[in-house]
Amino acid sequence: MRIFVPFDARDPNTRLAPLFSPEERRQIAESLLTDVLEAIRGAGHEPELIATGPVERDCPVHVDERSLTEAVNARLERSDRPVGIVMADLGLATAASIDRLADQPGDVVLAPGLGGGTNAIVSRDPAFRVDYHGGSYRKHRRGAEQKGLSVGTVDSFRLAVDIDEPADLAELLLHGDGESTAWLREHDVSLEIVDGRCTVRRPSP
Amino acid sequence: MRIFVPFDARDPNTRLAPLFSPEERRQIAESLLTDVLEAIRGAGHEPELIATGPVERDCPVHVDERSLTEAVNARLERSDRPVGIVMADLGLATAASIDRLADQPGDVVLAPGLGGGTNAIVSRDPAFRVDYHGGSYRKHRRGAEQKGLSVGTVDSFRLAVDIDEPADLAELLLHGDGESTAWLREHDVSLEIVDGRCTVRRPSP
Repeated sequence: MRIFVPFDARDPNTRLAPLFSPEERRQIAESLLTDVLEAIRGAGHEPELIATGPVERDCPVHVDERSLTEAVNARLERSDRPVGIVMADLGLATAASIDRLADQPGDVVLAPGLGGGTNAIVSRDPAFRVDYHGGSYRKHRRGAEQKGLSVGTVDSFRLAVDIDEPADLAELLLHGDGESTAWLREHDVSLEIVDGRCTVRRPSP
Repeated sequence: MRIFVPFDARDPNTRLAPLFSPEERRQIAESLLTDVLEAIRGAGHEPELIATGPVERDCPVHVDERSLTEAVNARLERSDRPVGIVMADLGLATAASIDRLADQPGDVVLAPGLGGGTNAIVSRDPAFRVDYHGGSYRKHRRGAEQKGLSVGTVDSFRLAVDIDEPADLAELLLHGDGESTAWLREHDVSLEIVDGRCTVRRPSP
């Protein structure tokens, strides 16, 4: 299956700014992308990037300056075969979790993200459209149902955690083993327990 | 399989205090417990409560005033059959997610919770011990490995979300269909999108 991975090549992971410089945030975004591409390939699929600017990767790269929603819908409406869309910041994604996404029945398959987002999708019907703005999971469910499409879901922690805020990095350190986790360790990011929950700390430079 | 559900009958869900009175928090805890017991029974297992005080439920209730860790370990060390431990606040748990927990191979099976906790466990070896204090997932992994026990994990969003803070309630409203979700709706708790992430709001009384 073709799996599109939307990637922001400009100013990624802005909510990590309290801990990292813009250049470091670009490096984190690149390492997360590497982990996602590896998971997709490990599950036997062909990733293609939809990037906001030029990116060097050994897969097809479509530079598209439109919004995330518009750029993805342009691919969905042109596709007569099943298509996947997987967010670029799922640093815990594994081949097994992508397998579960691809194997789940349904005209549309949704992997919920924490906080109401949609972290991964399989669309098997060209009528389906995305809308990633705020609370997309409910919009995607309703949008599919309004078109008479069946909706499957994937119950995956690894696909639910997108790397957005500093606390999300704790999940990488706890459960990850890819390039993004290695990057964090190399840059002295470590776990800290506050009020019984793990978060991360980084020594001041 | 016997599945123990530790339940705090005294002052549960203290982090929800900004939104709910102590009596309301007890009601939420009871409704979450109902959802967890239903998921366990739906998967064909027999739940037993380990409660900090008297509770009326149609399942065995063991009142045990020791700490969570001590109370659970007392059951593990006496058990020569596989034992499950499932937290009482997993309002998104379903029979299917409990099935996946019970079917996962390993001397010890861990379902990670967000923030480094351990939300559900199956122990098939009487040597395993729990330690729920701060960052328990890593302790459980290491503890099992130090005893030469194999560790399986369950990749489940539904088992990863424990209801701890107000933002966790958004996951119930988005993905739940049990008694706890119904309780929230009946008490005017609704979704609100802040900075692209769903959280909850409740009108002032």
